[in-house]
Amino acid sequence: MRELRRDPVIGQWVIISEERADRPVTAPVEQQADTGGFCPFCEENESSTPDEVYALRDDGSPPNGPGWRLRVVPNKFPALASEGELIVSCEGMYDRMSGIGFHEVLIETPRHDLALADLSSGRIADLFRAVRLRFCEFKKDKRIKCAQFFKNHGYTAGASIERSHSQIIAMPQVSKLLKEELNGANEYFKRENRCVYCDMIDNETSAKVRVVAETERFIALAPYASRFAYETLLLPKKHNHRFEDAGDGTIDALSVILKELLKKINSILSHPTYNLILHTFSFEHSADDGYYHWHVEFLPMVNRVAGFEWGSGLFINPVPPEEAAKRLREA
Amino acid sequence: MRELRRDPVIGQWVIISEERADRPVTAPVEQQADTGGFCPFCEENESSTPDEVYALRDDGSPPNGPGWRLRVVPNKFPALASEGELIVSCEGMYDRMSGIGFHEVLIETPRHDLALADLSSGRIADLFRAVRLRFCEFKKDKRIKCAQFFKNHGYTAGASIERSHSQIIAMPQVSKLLKEELNGANEYFKRENRCVYCDMIDNETSAKVRVVAETERFIALAPYASRFAYETLLLPKKHNHRFEDAGDGTIDALSVILKELLKKINSILSHPTYNLILHTFSFEHSADDGYYHWHVEFLPMVNRVAGFEWGSGLFINPVPPEEAAKRLREA
Repeated sequence: MRELRRDPVIGQWVIISEERADRPVTAPVEQQADTGGFCPFCEENESSTPDEVYALRDDGSPPNGPGWRLRVVPNKFPALASEGELIVSCEGMYDRMSGIGFHEVLIETPRHDLALADLSSGRIADLFRAVRLRFCEFKKDKRIKCAQFFKNHGYTAGASIERSHSQIIAMPQVSKLLKEELNGANEYFKRENRCVYCDMIDNETSAKVRVVAETERFIALAPYASRFAYETLLLPKKHNHRFEDAGDGTIDALSVILKELLKKINSILSHPTYNLILHTFSFEHSADDGYYHWHVEFLPMVNRVAGFEWGSGLFINPVPPEEAAKRLREA
Repeated sequence: MRELRRDPVIGQWVIISEERADRPVTAPVEQQADTGGFCPFCEENESSTPDEVYALRDDGSPPNGPGWRLRVVPNKFPALASEGELIVSCEGMYDRMSGIGFHEVLIETPRHDLALADLSSGRIADLFRAVRLRFCEFKKDKRIKCAQFFKNHGYTAGASIERSHSQIIAMPQVSKLLKEELNGANEYFKRENRCVYCDMIDNETSAKVRVVAETERFIALAPYASRFAYETLLLPKKHNHRFEDAGDGTIDALSVILKELLKKINSILSHPTYNLILHTFSFEHSADDGYYHWHVEFLPMVNRVAGFEWGSGLFINPVPPEEAAKRLREA
């Protein structure tokens, strides 16, 4: 198979080219981030991080000491910082804005040897509940327009600390991709009077060829125009544009299906590095902007991104999503 | 410094955050692509590639044998292929298009041990003249809407063969990024009555802080909203939207400034992996679409791209372009 496919939300074309899978490619050697044997995220090392902003702790254990099962701390080397006023200015023909925002790290477990896939779905739900809580906090800050939750698992996926953690960056701008998704979903809604993601759920549950897993509340599917091999989309079946409005039942269901996906991915691709990304509505619109539908994206980093992708914004995926879904479904 | 900057063409915001440079990051181990000791691109191994479509050869040497200094061959594992009709169809709510196109490899030298930076500017000009020639050829095919020339240097920049070569993918779609550049440049032109790239040249030559190198015909500069550390833009001073219209003098001048840039980059960053990308007009508009200005982008792959970038479409660059330009200028 060799074809171009269009993403129904942002309109991006992707090249699906199975023949590319035949070329001899040297597998990346998985490198470890070297922190000289010391892990700043381990229990007993709490003083190596800035003071925690949230933690799940044993009763009576004081902040910033041992006795926790999840900690949220400001990033010691933040991309954006919270102090100061949001100033928009120009420099000749260029525009700029002060680097206001929040950059936090979620340490998912006190144990150094466990990955997210090793945690119970209950502990994964703790993580997503912490994300929800932090999003509600960031939202109160009028300078902040959206927040990005993401996880880099493994060195080739961008992790600089070899230890299960994830991050949130809250920023004074609606991000480029979120803008594209909001515009695309809004256009679709205006044209079809329906949510594009709800339509995708309907389409995929009847076609069945790209469904990876399904539960009462969630569906995991290989997107029609997957950019990456084994890319998987986790969609709540109930339409809602804001992740932070999700109830505990929805978060539990997300954690169960994510844990199942991680098990499947690890068995098929032998523990690949990956990125996990939450897509949710911006903080700036009012509650009636219901054309959007929050979701989670799982991107295994098995293809390398190169000059073609940087130059064109297109992607070449050697594994058709139908094939990826079949393999994951059967795993 | 910690600020957000807006790209004046596509409007993309980039986070410039010097503080990110302070975090402990393990340098990537540069891996070699393993081809089992055999190089399909070396002299005497011409039969390992599909038949050449173009070559610069010693007088009288027959095609597909030794005696060449540059060869252009179809990619053995093409992302897109030239046979067949261009069919656009839909599948439920999704759109697709047959995978029509061309995918060619430019083998830049018969010598296995030389990188592009080791070639004389005359040999680099041979490469760009071959690109011009292939673009003129692709343009005749009415199914083709644009072509992307790119080079992946080194494994972490996506090269799967450890040997100096570059590629062209010609496709039946104007790429996502080219569309964004064309729209952005057109908007600017309609608003300001001037080319945004010409304005950038004026702005930068008077401000001087982001100029890396300058010759009579070209300027090399660190873009105001650089996504990558040491990202460099090579702009012809004479306004023209199509690379394939460039005369030999312009191509010679491009090769001279690129060679100088490679020398500077290699001395400062000790031979990093990189992507080199040509941005030029699509094949579908008529000749009066003069709001665009072709250019070459040089992207050293020293930061890793991770979940934040995949989720937001934003980039975090730890080296302010003013600092990058100063270091490169002085190298």
